[in-house]
Amino acid sequence: MAYINQYISKLDQLNFKDMFGGDFFLTWEKSFDEITATFTVADALRWLRENNISARVFDSGLGVSLFRDNSTRTRFSFASACNLLGLEVQDLDEGKSQIAHGETVRETANMISFMADVIGIRDDMYIGKGNTYMREFARAVREGHIDGNLEQRPTLVNLQCDIDHPTQIMADMNHIIHHFGGVDKLKGKKVAMTWAYSPSYGKPLSVPQGVIGLMTRFGMEVHLAHPEGYEVMPEVEEVASRNAAASGGKFIKSNSMAGAFKNADIVYPKSWAPFAAMEKRTSLYGAGDFDGIKALEKDLLAQNARHRDWECTEALMKSSRDGQALYLHCLPADITGVSCKEGEVAASVFDRYRVSLYKQASHKPYVIAAMIFLSKFKCPQETLGNLVSRNLLRCFS
Amino acid sequence: MAYINQYISKLDQLNFKDMFGGDFFLTWEKSFDEITATFTVADALRWLRENNISARVFDSGLGVSLFRDNSTRTRFSFASACNLLGLEVQDLDEGKSQIAHGETVRETANMISFMADVIGIRDDMYIGKGNTYMREFARAVREGHIDGNLEQRPTLVNLQCDIDHPTQIMADMNHIIHHFGGVDKLKGKKVAMTWAYSPSYGKPLSVPQGVIGLMTRFGMEVHLAHPEGYEVMPEVEEVASRNAAASGGKFIKSNSMAGAFKNADIVYPKSWAPFAAMEKRTSLYGAGDFDGIKALEKDLLAQNARHRDWECTEALMKSSRDGQALYLHCLPADITGVSCKEGEVAASVFDRYRVSLYKQASHKPYVIAAMIFLSKFKCPQETLGNLVSRNLLRCFS
Amino acid sequence: MAYINQYISKLDQLNFKDMFGGDFFLTWEKSFDEITATFTVADALRWLRENNISARVFDSGLGVSLFRDNSTRTRFSFASACNLLGLEVQDLDEGKSQIAHGETVRETANMISFMADVIGIRDDMYIGKGNTYMREFARAVREGHIDGNLEQRPTLVNLQCDIDHPTQIMADMNHIIHHFGGVDKLKGKKVAMTWAYSPSYGKPLSVPQGVIGLMTRFGMEVHLAHPEGYEVMPEVEEVASRNAAASGGKFIKSNSMAGAFKNADIVYPKSWAPFAAMEKRTSLYGAGDFDGIKALEKDLLAQNARHRDWECTEALMKSSRDGQALYLHCLPADITGVSCKEGEVAASVFDRYRVSLYKQASHKPYVIAAMIFLSKFKCPQETLGNLVSRNLLRCFS
Repeated sequence: MAYINQYISKLDQLNFKDMFGGDFFLTWEKSFDEITATFTVADALRWLRENNISARVFDSGLGVSLFRDNSTRTRFSFASACNLLGLEVQDLDEGKSQIAHGETVRETANMISFMADVIGIRDDMYIGKGNTYMREFARAVREGHIDGNLEQRPTLVNLQCDIDHPTQIMADMNHIIHHFGGVDKLKGKKVAMTWAYSPSYGKPLSVPQGVIGLMTRFGMEVHLAHPEGYEVMPEVEEVASRNAAASGGKFIKSNSMAGAFKNADIVYPKSWAPFAAMEKRTSLYGAGDFDGIKALEKDLLAQNARHRDWECTEALMKSSRDGQALYLHCLPADITGVSCKEGEVAASVFDRYRVSLYKQASHKPYVIAAMIFLSKFKCPQETLGNLVSRNLLRCFS
Repeated sequence: MAYINQYISKLDQLNFKDMFGGDFFLTWEKSFDEITATFTVADALRWLRENNISARVFDSGLGVSLFRDNSTRTRFSFASACNLLGLEVQDLDEGKSQIAHGETVRETANMISFMADVIGIRDDMYIGKGNTYMREFARAVREGHIDGNLEQRPTLVNLQCDIDHPTQIMADMNHIIHHFGGVDKLKGKKVAMTWAYSPSYGKPLSVPQGVIGLMTRFGMEVHLAHPEGYEVMPEVEEVASRNAAASGGKFIKSNSMAGAFKNADIVYPKSWAPFAAMEKRTSLYGAGDFDGIKALEKDLLAQNARHRDWECTEALMKSSRDGQALYLHCLPADITGVSCKEGEVAASVFDRYRVSLYKQASHKPYVIAAMIFLSKFKCPQETLGNLVSRNLLRCFS
Repeated sequence: MAYINQYISKLDQLNFKDMFGGDFFLTWEKSFDEITATFTVADALRWLRENNISARVFDSGLGVSLFRDNSTRTRFSFASACNLLGLEVQDLDEGKSQIAHGETVRETANMISFMADVIGIRDDMYIGKGNTYMREFARAVREGHIDGNLEQRPTLVNLQCDIDHPTQIMADMNHIIHHFGGVDKLKGKKVAMTWAYSPSYGKPLSVPQGVIGLMTRFGMEVHLAHPEGYEVMPEVEEVASRNAAASGGKFIKSNSMAGAFKNADIVYPKSWAPFAAMEKRTSLYGAGDFDGIKALEKDLLAQNARHRDWECTEALMKSSRDGQALYLHCLPADITGVSCKEGEVAASVFDRYRVSLYKQASHKPYVIAAMIFLSKFKCPQETLGNLVSRNLLRCFS
């Protein structure tokens, strides 16, 4: 009980009352207190599990997932989070459903949510689509609840959209906080969010955007570096600038990977597609112009190929703070000589950080569980305390 | 406790002892008391959930689903029902299994049922097949239980077959009962179960058949209207006639949508394929005559196209009782100008009834759960009472 | 309580302490005490379920399955075992994941295991691959646990590999033990593990190999009979010989089905591919030589066709001990005149043993649950006792 009180006391100092009954779409829609509360609950839930105390708050209920793009990590993180809290995952497989047949989002949302306490959606492929879809979905279930069709209002968790990837970036950030020993240690730290070469194309922008949208809130100096033409969404850059100004940090853009890495405390080299190209692809898809898409893909690969030198090498790592920057990646990475001939990162760099990378990923289930928890409980402090008092073992023996 | 006693008292007056250990294939195989008991238990389970009382009766156990046709609503309803009672859904995906390879139904049934408390099957595409398959499956697991291979006898729930769609129609019916304020308010009400135009073809007959097979039991005047050539199974029409005679209601057939709608209290306009065509298709499939199937499909579409005027328009709705008939649909509907150019229903009609339609659908999980509950518990009244006394919260806080 | 003590007393006499925290790859890596403990726990878990006592030891946690080949029986057995113990199955569907994309086994293993208590893998198609893959997977999660990324070390259960099929053969063996009334009744019994004709080719060798690898440990006389050219892995034959020598039994090879059946107490006629052909196919796949594979398949079918007389007929059954040998099959069988024109077994033989075959299969969920249980609990006797004392009903009423 003593230990859980540390989390409870921390929560007592934060204002996150608006998270009750809410959704999680974009980190920059949440206050700093709300972000901090999410990390705190994530850590508390992890502590419970590590101490074999059940965090099963739901005796029944569904966690519905809808993946409009392949996923392993996020799928298993969502499943783990739901399971930890007692929700059974039910995947909405659009291929096995009748949805194709012109059904509205509002209808689908209501039809699958009768016993859903949470809905997790990944929809990251088309600019202007994913986040919009999630909000429409959330609006539909809110109305369904008000209308009395749904006995509970499911919480919507953004499992990656065209704009942000909040469960990923929150996990990344919590890893950084743990690595450096607390939020108060981050002031002035330099973060290099850089593009990196990949032989594939069209990777979503949600990770770089999510990183500059969140990490600028901790008083850090966030560098976004990419070759010309690989710009991210301008709206998110504005968010990053505003965040930096408010937090006493900096948001700096450049076209130099070396400049970004120089004395960086944290590096996040990762490939993505140019925003403008993704926008173009979205409208080509809209128009059903498949020849246009093919031509665009060819162009993108050729464009990528001009930047093979954007690789996270040992030399670049040496130029970072004491040669020991924290290397981050959302995984899977394109590793030179391992998963491709030339890629985002040198094999020796990746291998040295492997354990750290897995630890980074291990925060995701707890971050998702915390998002759900904070939406479901009016007084999470009390619920956490009650879970400890209940003293139900996670594994009976 | 006071409130649950209303359901318990109602059950005390009904004779449904034969449901214990039984299956649910067709509504007309169940007595009126058994049908009423199902609605009562469905309402009781919903009341428990609305009051955050866990209805988890199974601490472990599987609910196996087998969908031989795409499904969203029924899939999620079945999953919700199983989850509510504590059963984990395990889907038998025939594509990922070894079943293709000539295995008998008896073998499959036994192999997946070692820990299955319920099996839900949808098999609605071929006349004479789906219901037969379910009965064979149910017989196999009954034998498996008698032989000692299965420790429990799984309950079979028909999630739609070629003859009936009992979980849908029971949900529809419970919606009607709630809408009109009780079974005693239904005497003499006029129901219009009518065909409606759809640009697709080959929709199952299980909904119109299920409707005339069930709704004729409540003393209502049930009109079945369709263009010539869209007849349903004669056996089910006979059931409807017998039911109407016994309940003091009426069963009337016509080829006039307008006549059916005139002063109707309830309207259910919905497309379906002609029984004779479905029979023909079934035998073409049996013979592997794919050219024949293609030709038949073309004919069916052309036949449909001659009846574009069978649309549930505002004008038709106005002709119903006080212009305010209860509009029903099993969803998804073909909505004119929304999901297709011309369809079953005008967009403005559909939209006005949207909330009601979602409420209609929301009964299905509870109806399915009630079917399972009544098959599993010798004295459901006692079990319901014990659930309230146990006072386990659905969501702990 | 009295009854469970029989299982507990039996366990008290066995040394299986090394199973705690371990995996289950091959039966011959386990001591005889460990094998016996597995059967004992399987029987105890079955007794609990038959007596409506919950064996749910996990309040939350995942059981991850990875099937690299189609499966019904094993899939449902694994799901049943996990569910019995309280674990929710999450299937790693490589098609829906990002794994294709060059990811290492180590990474995948860590990414899906944050809350996994058990991982079940079927990977049986390529010689030298499946078992190796499982060990690499198990090593990765052991390291992930040591590194602190995984809060628990998932137990790996081999759900069939290129070498052994331990969950199948252990279920088969437990069926034999129950059939004959105890391990002490098996001394000197004759087992005929024979090849049988099938119109398909390329069936895995894991069943015959698993049978000779396990059944030789009980003092029985195990005959392996197959046409020339259908040799199994020499390493496993050596295991069988050593086992037979140690247990006071015999391991005999021949090319005569009749000889093997003569006075046999147990017969297990089943098709498989020649080891050398499987090896060749594995290297053709490795080289991407699809023409070579096609040619090989044609040859294999032709080779099979020369041995159509290897069928388990009534005449052969008559030649067994008192004409009443226990007929075993892992199912599905190729039944002459039922699932194929000519197959492994005559329809009348198969039919006479149908109930027995289903009982044989029914042991598998419990065997898998026992493997998990023994890996998770330091003192399974105590945990079994506590489950009885806890007295939580499997089905509340």
